[in-house]
Amino acid sequence: MAIPEKLLEVLKKDGVVAIATLGPEGPHMVNTWNTYIRVSEDGRLLIPAGYYHKTQANITVNNKVLVTLGSNQVQGLNGPGTGFLIKGTAAFLTTGQEFDAMKSRFGWARRPGHHDRLCDADTVARMSRPSRRSWLEGASSYLSAFPFRQ
Amino acid sequence: MAIPEKLLEVLKKDGVVAIATLGPEGPHMVNTWNTYIRVSEDGRLLIPAGYYHKTQANITVNNKVLVTLGSNQVQGLNGPGTGFLIKGTAAFLTTGQEFDAMKSRFGWARRPGHHDRLCDADTVARMSRPSRRSWLEGASSYLSAFPFRQ
Repeated sequence: MAIPEKLLEVLKKDGVVAIATLGPEGPHMVNTWNTYIRVSEDGRLLIPAGYYHKTQANITVNNKVLVTLGSNQVQGLNGPGTGFLIKGTAAFLTTGQEFDAMKSRFGWARRPGHHDRLCDADTVARMSRPSRRSWLEGASSYLSAFPFRQ
Repeated sequence: MAIPEKLLEVLKKDGVVAIATLGPEGPHMVNTWNTYIRVSEDGRLLIPAGYYHKTQANITVNNKVLVTLGSNQVQGLNGPGTGFLIKGTAAFLTTGQEFDAMKSRFGWARRPGHHDRLCDADTVARMSRPSRRSWLEGASSYLSAFPFRQ
């Protein structure tokens, strides 16, 4: 599935990405930066996993994720500023070409022995496979609906 | 409780805020912009409610919310870029001085008859009361741990 051009624009701008999963105590959130996300050839989002231990544990039980990101520097439907809500599923990668590419770019992702010796130190990248519906929702989502600073 | 100076800095910078609640189908997320949030005199966050119908419905059942926000333009613990994870509870305001102040600034918040005639058109601002623990977590959180673009 093709990634919307607007989302690719957002990924080039500075900004905070929020990733929500469901855990035993309710929603859990972690974050990354827009510019840390890479898009795979087949339209998945690759996200370097810094910590994300609870996220990984949650995903082993329920792999549904919500991701939001945006930028006030990208034109929206009603003025400057747009954003996306992505509903998808996620998995953690530990091997493969995509893993290697992300690991070489984001060496801090789960550095062995540095953050948590008990963690799976070789787990690095994280994928979200958004559904088409998600993109349509995202393209007309709330962030787009609010012009920036009007 | 005093709001950390770093958080006040973040609120002055452009950026996307994510707000997560728990609904019957799992986590639900909505967003706003950093600069749309105001801080009350007693340290609560006031957020104009644009749409947010599901969020409001979720909060009537479970008032726990997670809020994340950040900016790469604010210095973090390990370099440029910092962010906060706020764990708190939320309520929707429909009257009062804080409501009036937010409504006069953000007139689009739940405009009667404009977005959804079935909604509570006079519901406008949303408050999060963070716990002290939340702030401590936020101050040393993941966003701070990752320097921007290194």
